[in-house]
Amino acid sequence: MNPYIKTMKCIVKKTREPGGLALEEKPIPVPDDNGVLIKTIKTAICGTDLHIYSWNSWARKTINTPQIIGHEFVGEVAAVGKNVENCRVGDLVGGEGHLFCGVCRHCITGLAHLCPHTKGIGVNTDGAFAEYFVFPAKNIWLCDATIPLNVLAVYDPLGNAMHTVRSFDVLGEDVLVTGAGPIGLMSVPILRRIGARNIVVTDINDRRLEMARELGATAVVNVTREKIADVVAKIPSMVEGFDVGLEMSGSASGFNDMIDVMANGGNIAILGFLPPEAAIEWDKMIFKSLTLKGVYGREVFDTWYQMTALLQSGLSDEIAKIITHEFMYTDFIEAFELMKSGQSGKIILNWS
Amino acid sequence: MNPYIKTMKCIVKKTREPGGLALEEKPIPVPDDNGVLIKTIKTAICGTDLHIYSWNSWARKTINTPQIIGHEFVGEVAAVGKNVENCRVGDLVGGEGHLFCGVCRHCITGLAHLCPHTKGIGVNTDGAFAEYFVFPAKNIWLCDATIPLNVLAVYDPLGNAMHTVRSFDVLGEDVLVTGAGPIGLMSVPILRRIGARNIVVTDINDRRLEMARELGATAVVNVTREKIADVVAKIPSMVEGFDVGLEMSGSASGFNDMIDVMANGGNIAILGFLPPEAAIEWDKMIFKSLTLKGVYGREVFDTWYQMTALLQSGLSDEIAKIITHEFMYTDFIEAFELMKSGQSGKIILNWS
Amino acid sequence: MNPYIKTMKCIVKKTREPGGLALEEKPIPVPDDNGVLIKTIKTAICGTDLHIYSWNSWARKTINTPQIIGHEFVGEVAAVGKNVENCRVGDLVGGEGHLFCGVCRHCITGLAHLCPHTKGIGVNTDGAFAEYFVFPAKNIWLCDATIPLNVLAVYDPLGNAMHTVRSFDVLGEDVLVTGAGPIGLMSVPILRRIGARNIVVTDINDRRLEMARELGATAVVNVTREKIADVVAKIPSMVEGFDVGLEMSGSASGFNDMIDVMANGGNIAILGFLPPEAAIEWDKMIFKSLTLKGVYGREVFDTWYQMTALLQSGLSDEIAKIITHEFMYTDFIEAFELMKSGQSGKIILNWS
Amino acid sequence: MNPYIKTMKCIVKKTREPGGLALEEKPIPVPDDNGVLIKTIKTAICGTDLHIYSWNSWARKTINTPQIIGHEFVGEVAAVGKNVENCRVGDLVGGEGHLFCGVCRHCITGLAHLCPHTKGIGVNTDGAFAEYFVFPAKNIWLCDATIPLNVLAVYDPLGNAMHTVRSFDVLGEDVLVTGAGPIGLMSVPILRRIGARNIVVTDINDRRLEMARELGATAVVNVTREKIADVVAKIPSMVEGFDVGLEMSGSASGFNDMIDVMANGGNIAILGFLPPEAAIEWDKMIFKSLTLKGVYGREVFDTWYQMTALLQSGLSDEIAKIITHEFMYTDFIEAFELMKSGQSGKIILNWS
Repeated sequence: MNPYIKTMKCIVKKTREPGGLALEEKPIPVPDDNGVLIKTIKTAICGTDLHIYSWNSWARKTINTPQIIGHEFVGEVAAVGKNVENCRVGDLVGGEGHLFCGVCRHCITGLAHLCPHTKGIGVNTDGAFAEYFVFPAKNIWLCDATIPLNVLAVYDPLGNAMHTVRSFDVLGEDVLVTGAGPIGLMSVPILRRIGARNIVVTDINDRRLEMARELGATAVVNVTREKIADVVAKIPSMVEGFDVGLEMSGSASGFNDMIDVMANGGNIAILGFLPPEAAIEWDKMIFKSLTLKGVYGREVFDTWYQMTALLQSGLSDEIAKIITHEFMYTDFIEAFELMKSGQSGKIILNWS
Repeated sequence: MNPYIKTMKCIVKKTREPGGLALEEKPIPVPDDNGVLIKTIKTAICGTDLHIYSWNSWARKTINTPQIIGHEFVGEVAAVGKNVENCRVGDLVGGEGHLFCGVCRHCITGLAHLCPHTKGIGVNTDGAFAEYFVFPAKNIWLCDATIPLNVLAVYDPLGNAMHTVRSFDVLGEDVLVTGAGPIGLMSVPILRRIGARNIVVTDINDRRLEMARELGATAVVNVTREKIADVVAKIPSMVEGFDVGLEMSGSASGFNDMIDVMANGGNIAILGFLPPEAAIEWDKMIFKSLTLKGVYGREVFDTWYQMTALLQSGLSDEIAKIITHEFMYTDFIEAFELMKSGQSGKIILNWS
Repeated sequence: MNPYIKTMKCIVKKTREPGGLALEEKPIPVPDDNGVLIKTIKTAICGTDLHIYSWNSWARKTINTPQIIGHEFVGEVAAVGKNVENCRVGDLVGGEGHLFCGVCRHCITGLAHLCPHTKGIGVNTDGAFAEYFVFPAKNIWLCDATIPLNVLAVYDPLGNAMHTVRSFDVLGEDVLVTGAGPIGLMSVPILRRIGARNIVVTDINDRRLEMARELGATAVVNVTREKIADVVAKIPSMVEGFDVGLEMSGSASGFNDMIDVMANGGNIAILGFLPPEAAIEWDKMIFKSLTLKGVYGREVFDTWYQMTALLQSGLSDEIAKIITHEFMYTDFIEAFELMKSGQSGKIILNWS
Repeated sequence: MNPYIKTMKCIVKKTREPGGLALEEKPIPVPDDNGVLIKTIKTAICGTDLHIYSWNSWARKTINTPQIIGHEFVGEVAAVGKNVENCRVGDLVGGEGHLFCGVCRHCITGLAHLCPHTKGIGVNTDGAFAEYFVFPAKNIWLCDATIPLNVLAVYDPLGNAMHTVRSFDVLGEDVLVTGAGPIGLMSVPILRRIGARNIVVTDINDRRLEMARELGATAVVNVTREKIADVVAKIPSMVEGFDVGLEMSGSASGFNDMIDVMANGGNIAILGFLPPEAAIEWDKMIFKSLTLKGVYGREVFDTWYQMTALLQSGLSDEIAKIITHEFMYTDFIEAFELMKSGQSGKIILNWS
């Protein structure tokens, strides 16, 4: 680190209104004894960042302004606090953006992703859309430099996909994915690489469904035109319905359609935020003995390890296809507007 | 079997109206090659029998009249078909009343409780409220004669309780049971005997709650007067909410109260039939990473084995307390009316 | 079935000596009420058949002569007993050759592969190396006719491989397979298709190791020339040793080498029959917290379902490569001698 | 802490010979930023301490002299480093004596008990047989003060028992415990409280076997006089052998006896250090499909949580019975000699 450089560029949510993001110059922060200073290489824009940009109701009640946003990143360690033992200056790193407490029952039994006291970097504290940012050493993930930087930048959503897929055993099973957004798309090649049999993906966007097919889906369903059951009827090996469902649409009707086509004893992992009014027929859920699992974040660091292992085994090529655009961080407004349009996969902001 | 006796007494749903049960005389049925004739010793009245008696909407669309009802029983083998190998005349037996197909994926992989083609004895076919009835050999459970006959007669609902409790690991965990009906009550001593820490039971009936306390509940909550959270606040070892919930009330408000007091990563098994309008706050379910499992029937025969083992280890005494009344089968109207009044635990009909 | 044909050709172990196999003509057997008559299409030769041929000590104490041998098969249903419900004349079928009792705890809880009363077809009863043979309906597996017949003929050993691989979670894990015989080879593409990261295979036969590499092994080790640790040192992603070991060599030294290179908490599935004198350093096993699981047969019918699903997803091509030779059943001596020479993969005998 | 007190009493292994323990006066150590100073209240003597006292081959190659020994303790926090967040001065604490690295795959995925870089307090670093000692904050366990101090002092071996018992599901199962030393004895009431059916304990010491019976064993076997199979034959509910085995004897013959009486599919957890020459019949292990799991230490902090929950539910009374003697620390020689004689359960040294 050049000791004469004391300030950095960063993207700040400045005003409590839609838009309201500004590129600013701020002092480079200093890590504490157990903290790390990271020099940002690449970041990716998350749906959460878009919520902050759009200033929706969640953002209004959650975000304190002014705040540096962003939490999907890959960077290089620029400085370490005096008690840090797990990384050194120059290491290529990512990290878990949920800042768990480290003290509660979940944290001390290896379930930090369930910590009730967690804070989100870039949400509750200053984030990664900056040339530099500080990060707790215990949240650091050491990256394998043979994995492309763009892919390392999307470990956070890829971890959501991996965590959701890993909720249930999918070997030889027939899997329904409702919703072909970036995380839904990421789940397809993961499922394919760990032995799922039939993978059916639904959405209302043909371009995304085509992408799902290219990534390994057995069949895709545009629910504005087709019924899932009709598509399933053409798959000879499917007899009793889907064994596993991954709900990534946040749509009440999609969720109810899913329940209808599940096999008895089927398992559904829910990542998409369903609206509170999403009523389901509970007697179907019980007669079919379905299990519904709410999924949030990713396991620290089991999921990180597993996705790294799959990326090292070839998954990188497929994930790279889901990253459709790159911008310099100075062009962030253009990037956010493209993301908002829905005409993209993941979008990268480059910081160096 | 006395070869000169050709007929038997049985309780028949005769007319398609509330009530409509009659004691009749019918020919003793003959088992097929893979079937067994059982001489009934004791039966118990299930909520399902009460629905048929009351002729609710479910009964109207499900039951063909005339039909012998009943499915909770213990009896003695009176005759066996020529290919039967797993039991002999004179054996004391119970049996799984869900007549699974034996051919589908679930049946051939040890998950017959998930068979989508299952039929219920006493619901879809003639049942056990008779001096004799036929039963498939593959559904037979050989009873340990050291277990009291009354307890053997309630293996079916005890199996529901066991199956629900066993949905999740409860060792050292804090468990909330919503609903202190017979199955909810049965779950309390099971939980106690397998290492749950705090067991809190809710209901609106003080008598049942008192019974829950006697059976081992740490605390009970009459939700008409108290809040769960207030009761929990008095239990020093409870910090982060309930780890496991057993929903046995079928009440939408009870279910939502449960979701509110669960710990992150908590697991809920749902046995009670929730109404379709039971809306839940899905974002809570996801942020808390809760798992909801629909429970139906019991595992064939894992649950049977496990409950037998617990009964052999002392559980019998507690289960016996939940059986509050016995009648001769000829007094079945009185028994059904008592059951309907809600002023009883399990009720036994004696057949010999 | 042509009713005028009353006899069939079959391969009989006739005399209690090495060799001692004869092609004979015997009456076509008749299935009982719950049995099926199968017209054999293809069979494969198992190591067990070779033991019977070689008349080793196990064979001498196990086999009653004269007996029709063979248990790896695919055939067509030629007749069914009157109570059979799961298949019809003309169905393409395979089947589980372990004739489990159906009555013990394991059998009635979905764990028939653990039945202590099991008998082996072609070992304890007349087998499948015949134009026709009888088989219990409950052991029948209905085949997917889109899978090649040769592959259907090796479901038995493929099931061993699948059962062994499935003993532990391999997603993202580094796996050591000791022994590249047919079952060891089959395990490689299975591991690859369900997400293992590094797969290292050891043997003393370069031709088999080359085959392992073609089937997807990351690296192979000829233990007569190389050390496992040296090969592992060249794999950058391997840090702490193997997470999973599949012992398929039956070699004491191979097993001890495996223990040395396992990571703490590693899991070993043992399919190969280790000699009783195979001493291990138990303190290593304990300090490393290793788990050793003995594997026998395959799960009925979980394993059958899972391998079918993987074959339907593309595994067939790789398994077909492990089948190196086909003979008419009349040339069985030639086939057995080739198998004995070790210069083959799986060998098929054609019966029609 | 009184700032004028700068030194403390401690028990030091001083000379490299049998015995060689001395009570010394040393400076009170100072914790680092992430460390804690503990004022010792009670300690217990472990078999490991006895090995150091006896100066066996393991001790000779492991221990650097002079060193303060001891690792089973309960104490009070006397001072904390500046970054410590999980405890405060005055807290009643125990702690995990395996000093895991915190950086390796196991440590960052909640499996610190499998850390290959672990060091043992009182073995590789100065220990707890001292008025004060320093301890990493991340290894601290906050104690529930309603649990008796003597029981809190034996969390370490109780954790071994709990970890071993929890290796496999024991609900309704028949369990064989070979070895009725303190940890074997502790496992009996744990098994009883979490739903094991029959618990059979073996040893060669009648006094210990009598204790096992009092703690809840169904039957006990003095293997110098009886055979396990003969005792089992008198237990009516036992049919197919033991489902779970806990090997805590370190005896080769005990281990082979266990394998003989296990049911197919049985699971054995091995805590006792078997000699390398402990040959087993591997074909039995495979034909029976047994699983053997090496157990070391205890899960951090899952095991700690679970045993606390059981102690809060009543287990304390039974564990207290296994603590047979208490001494002032100044009488440590007498305590060690008693322990060595085998005429005791757990022995406590009091430090205040």
